[in-house]
Amino acid sequence: MRRTRLFTKTLREAPADEVARNAQLLIRAGFVHKEMAGVYAYLPLGLRVIEHIKQIVREEMNAAGGEELLMTTLQPSDIWEKTNRWDDEVVDNWFKTKLLNGTVLGVGLTHEEPIVDAARPYISSYKDLPKSVYQIGNKYRNEKRAKSGLLRGREFIMKDLYTFARDQEEHERVYENFAVAYGKVYERLGLGDVTYRVKADGGIFTKRYSDEFQTRTDIGEDIIYHAKGSELYYNQEVAPSRAPRVEQASEQLPMEAKHTPGVVGVEQLARELGVAVESTVKTMLYVIDDVVTAVAVRGDYEVNEIKLRMALDAKSVALADEDTIKRVTGAEVGYAGLIGLPDDVRIIVDDSVEPLVNFELGANVTNEHNVNVNWDRDLPRPECFYDVKDAKEGDLSPETGEVYEVFRAVEVGNIFPLETKYTDLLDMYYLDENGERQSIVMGSYGVGVSRLMGVVAEHFSDDKGLIWPENIAPYHVYLVSIGQTGSEKADELYDELAKRGVEVMYDDRDVRPGEKFADAELMGMPWRVTVSDRGVEAGTYELTERKTGETVVLTYDELLAKLG
Amino acid sequence: MRRTRLFTKTLREAPADEVARNAQLLIRAGFVHKEMAGVYAYLPLGLRVIEHIKQIVREEMNAAGGEELLMTTLQPSDIWEKTNRWDDEVVDNWFKTKLLNGTVLGVGLTHEEPIVDAARPYISSYKDLPKSVYQIGNKYRNEKRAKSGLLRGREFIMKDLYTFARDQEEHERVYENFAVAYGKVYERLGLGDVTYRVKADGGIFTKRYSDEFQTRTDIGEDIIYHAKGSELYYNQEVAPSRAPRVEQASEQLPMEAKHTPGVVGVEQLARELGVAVESTVKTMLYVIDDVVTAVAVRGDYEVNEIKLRMALDAKSVALADEDTIKRVTGAEVGYAGLIGLPDDVRIIVDDSVEPLVNFELGANVTNEHNVNVNWDRDLPRPECFYDVKDAKEGDLSPETGEVYEVFRAVEVGNIFPLETKYTDLLDMYYLDENGERQSIVMGSYGVGVSRLMGVVAEHFSDDKGLIWPENIAPYHVYLVSIGQTGSEKADELYDELAKRGVEVMYDDRDVRPGEKFADAELMGMPWRVTVSDRGVEAGTYELTERKTGETVVLTYDELLAKLG
Repeated sequence: MRRTRLFTKTLREAPADEVARNAQLLIRAGFVHKEMAGVYAYLPLGLRVIEHIKQIVREEMNAAGGEELLMTTLQPSDIWEKTNRWDDEVVDNWFKTKLLNGTVLGVGLTHEEPIVDAARPYISSYKDLPKSVYQIGNKYRNEKRAKSGLLRGREFIMKDLYTFARDQEEHERVYENFAVAYGKVYERLGLGDVTYRVKADGGIFTKRYSDEFQTRTDIGEDIIYHAKGSELYYNQEVAPSRAPRVEQASEQLPMEAKHTPGVVGVEQLARELGVAVESTVKTMLYVIDDVVTAVAVRGDYEVNEIKLRMALDAKSVALADEDTIKRVTGAEVGYAGLIGLPDDVRIIVDDSVEPLVNFELGANVTNEHNVNVNWDRDLPRPECFYDVKDAKEGDLSPETGEVYEVFRAVEVGNIFPLETKYTDLLDMYYLDENGERQSIVMGSYGVGVSRLMGVVAEHFSDDKGLIWPENIAPYHVYLVSIGQTGSEKADELYDELAKRGVEVMYDDRDVRPGEKFADAELMGMPWRVTVSDRGVEAGTYELTERKTGETVVLTYDELLAKLG
Repeated sequence: MRRTRLFTKTLREAPADEVARNAQLLIRAGFVHKEMAGVYAYLPLGLRVIEHIKQIVREEMNAAGGEELLMTTLQPSDIWEKTNRWDDEVVDNWFKTKLLNGTVLGVGLTHEEPIVDAARPYISSYKDLPKSVYQIGNKYRNEKRAKSGLLRGREFIMKDLYTFARDQEEHERVYENFAVAYGKVYERLGLGDVTYRVKADGGIFTKRYSDEFQTRTDIGEDIIYHAKGSELYYNQEVAPSRAPRVEQASEQLPMEAKHTPGVVGVEQLARELGVAVESTVKTMLYVIDDVVTAVAVRGDYEVNEIKLRMALDAKSVALADEDTIKRVTGAEVGYAGLIGLPDDVRIIVDDSVEPLVNFELGANVTNEHNVNVNWDRDLPRPECFYDVKDAKEGDLSPETGEVYEVFRAVEVGNIFPLETKYTDLLDMYYLDENGERQSIVMGSYGVGVSRLMGVVAEHFSDDKGLIWPENIAPYHVYLVSIGQTGSEKADELYDELAKRGVEVMYDDRDVRPGEKFADAELMGMPWRVTVSDRGVEAGTYELTERKTGETVVLTYDELLAKLG
């Protein structure tokens, strides 16, 4: 492609309202056009990157046994009502629209329901399983804010794959198969060494983790806990954690009830009492699958509701309301503790509380706390302690006993065990070898294609511009001509490279060399070739690697051998 | 692809609510899934056809100088308000949706406005022109009824291209260039000999025709007028026409005013008077660009408002309201004629009226008609007669003087001169060589990609099923194995063909040969290869062409030579 024919130009500035670095760079380099917040059009250069990413994803999904199809954007309500995902109260990011007759339609935000509905005529026997289908297309999510450029869009391109299996065992085989395929995708995208398979929340209908693929980058929204020296990575939301040990008194002091008028919360309590917050205990009251439950964590931790749900294999976890708290504690909100609760209140204590000596605790009396509480003496030691706290920096991995490595990352893929939720609710079953009806185990697997372009733009870039990995660069070479004979030779080289199938962006414009070099750096093709009058005279060509900035001087044949 | 692994199966029946033959066949053969009326998902086989069509279109657009990009589905209102295409009163088939904050968004139904908006940073000088960009993606149109399967969808795949040129001359060069590319597309799709470039309405902001590409088929919604022996094809809506001559009296009779109480309309008039409707004249009152205009056509014709608009180079053509009719004719509605109209009423007479002798005419008096009216004697012969009638079967082409060939067709593409309407309204101009601001001439060019799949399915099919043209078939070969040794040899052949890059659907199922043959015919791959026990024994393979049903018996090497 000749620059003089290219639809786009580079721009000095991105729109003022564009705050995300990935979008700023992509707009300035002419890869995308911002239609509105979270909605970007892909201009010719950007579309080439998208197509390269799609092709890599497609090849790996096909190799792993996926069949490509394409579901629809417009969605009828009935299939979503069956799974309780239609109501805006339940799913808060639908875009909806209407037929002329008033019928409300959804604008596809995911495709579990329609894919089950479409699969129904084709899956009825054990012989029809397993099956894996995927699509690459637009998703629409009505995000409240969209300010991360291509990292979180309202309209974005996604590859979503769905698998159907006879049972959990077959499902797990299929699931691992695609997990491996995902690894290959990130490898080929050039993100292999900074992308990790991370355990995350599996959602309310499974007690299993889901798996996320997270690319390490400071601008990521997720926080990852890595058990150093292992392949164990957790999203903070589910990271198992052990609190680092805090020195405890060797002697138990007598328990006292302290009058603490107006003191609510452990921070204030610690301040008032002049003790470390780590010696306080926070008691939160929950209703978990209808059972009122007191959950205690060390004062400097927060209760993690996902870990709590998983630990108890519960369906629903909700904070108790004010009335319930007053009823079971006999006190105003803010004074819940573990001593003297009614018998029907379940007690769950985090393992951060286990080693404490002389700790502070709400007294279940308004304006009162117990201080110098000790296990066994003042309240019975629970039979077991749980890990139901939010992990925080400095915590240890229970699996390795080492302090976690903690870093920010952006999710570039996720894979989900869906159990039999959707297939059961949408009434799709199969007959096994004995003619008996069985549930179908489903999985879903997403890759954010346009997000990946944003991640790569943000991750592989410097103050001069973009730096595309070879496999997804819109063009392999940025060819710069300087001077009259330089241009003639560059024309020749351009034709020769085209013949050899090398994709070249040829800057044949009549502008200063400095402007061409600056554009080469902003647009970020992996290699720049400079053909100048002087070089032609000497029979040499400059080849510059965008990533390193290193330049080598080559003969024509050497250059072709290197690029062709 | 092995049938035993294919996601879909063939179905005995299409859904009961599916009336269109193209969709019935595509659903039964497992190519598409009906999500709702006018909204189809593309299953793996269907998506392969779509991708083949897209690739052909893409190659031809690229070869003609188009650059591919991808605009967004979600559309902000502001750019559409500028061109007056936002309001549902003006554009009646928008799908609209809302951001959480209540902002109304459009769901992309076309992309002239956003493409101009996106092009703005890149087109400012004569050096930036001409430019041609296109996309292949979904369009959404809120159709009242959608019952033609893939021929008229609410969600469908379209290629839309937009060109920008310095002036009309450059525009026409670019326009013809893409018109030629369109011809190549239909040729490659196998529709070349039944697809015609047809002149059609260019819309209100140009006095030029647009061009449609119409594929002849009995299920088409459009009616095409072909001037036999020429390359002139017209959509009925704009077809120039000359009425076949009707025998006229040699002698003029005296004009009379007849009392015709309650007689409204020429059919009733002809019946009452006992004359042929061809000897009556219908006078319709219009307001054309604010001028009240009486338009007269022979009684058996209808006024064609598009031809009227083009003939007068008018912007707006509307039937006069009742008050206006009463005011200018002095009579109730139904009695308008040409005699005695006020001087400020313009008179336009169709050429079908010119040769009439002793014709009937409304008298501009309630319940009265003039009979035996004659030009020159009873009213002045107009200086010129116009062609402002709807063409009908039997009419002559004014260009060849021959009776038109008339046939039904479906539109598979259209190209539109947009003049400078969108660029002017959206305030995008360029500076010419003299630094002067100039308007940019734009064109738009559409191909209905998913519609083409429907057209091909409908056009190339028989009572047994689909018949795909080679270039877009999902697979080239349908391989049928029969018996044990047949299956072993078929396995080998399948591997060998795969090695040679031949795309094969291998029916390796353990079912009766008849079932395999029936599926082969329903699915419609161009070639069927049958490998049976008996054949293997004799060292022969049967090759059957789907289109003709002809079978030849070949050796292994002959078969490979033929297919590989």
